[in-house]
Amino acid sequence: MAPAYDNDNVFAKILRGEIPSHKVYEDEHSYAFMDIMPRCDGHTLIIPKKPARNLLDVEFDSLGHTMATVQKIGRAVMKAFAADGISLLQFNEPAGGQVVFHLHFHIVPRFEGVSIPPYTGEMADHAVLAANAEKLRAALEG
Amino acid sequence: MAPAYDNDNVFAKILRGEIPSHKVYEDEHSYAFMDIMPRCDGHTLIIPKKPARNLLDVEFDSLGHTMATVQKIGRAVMKAFAADGISLLQFNEPAGGQVVFHLHFHIVPRFEGVSIPPYTGEMADHAVLAANAEKLRAALEG
Repeated sequence: MAPAYDNDNVFAKILRGEIPSHKVYEDEHSYAFMDIMPRCDGHTLIIPKKPARNLLDVEFDSLGHTMATVQKIGRAVMKAFAADGISLLQFNEPAGGQVVFHLHFHIVPRFEGVSIPPYTGEMADHAVLAANAEKLRAALEG
Repeated sequence: MAPAYDNDNVFAKILRGEIPSHKVYEDEHSYAFMDIMPRCDGHTLIIPKKPARNLLDVEFDSLGHTMATVQKIGRAVMKAFAADGISLLQFNEPAGGQVVFHLHFHIVPRFEGVSIPPYTGEMADHAVLAANAEKLRAALEG
């Protein structure tokens, strides 16, 4: 049995506005922002607003609406970063690669002939993240 | 602009029953079966029945119902393979890692202290795939 949802996880704090994030998009059901330890420029996270630990416990409606946002952000990443493709990654439980225990989907832009960049745990420059969020917001509006 | 959906892709043929697959689950909207070039035992694919090239063009309802099946299969993989976690992978366009151009989600069982096994392109033994599909069907019924 997986542990219960922890209201003090970092993404819950982002949703409550208790800690800042580089916001890309928000609607009634979901929130998208830049990963602060990105694999590459444009690496974006999409999360449901409703508490869910991961894919194993998320509710049907919340998952469906979150995936609609994943698609929206995927299209925007293709456009904003002139990507040739995107990879979607989503990890469940520590063994599955999960570090923050609020359901999140990673969208990583991909380019011809370039392998998916590894996770390094290195924090990106906030000015770069802010500029990338702005590019994505422009792509969503355009 | 991405190319149009190709009705002769291998997963379209599986859905039409023109080529065999190790079926795990099926409902009105989605179909789940064993990956024949698995990263490890239990590696399962989930696809919508409605044609979609990938995440970038799939329709909202089809995506939502397919994700409900992804969750169902994820829970079954945890149980059937006594996994500690699962990783969800989904690739879009050749640069994004996509090889078959019908939207598909990979569920890979994960275990404490073991990195995600790489894709090798090696075909698994059909008897092993059949046994793994049977384990998953039993977990779905149990």
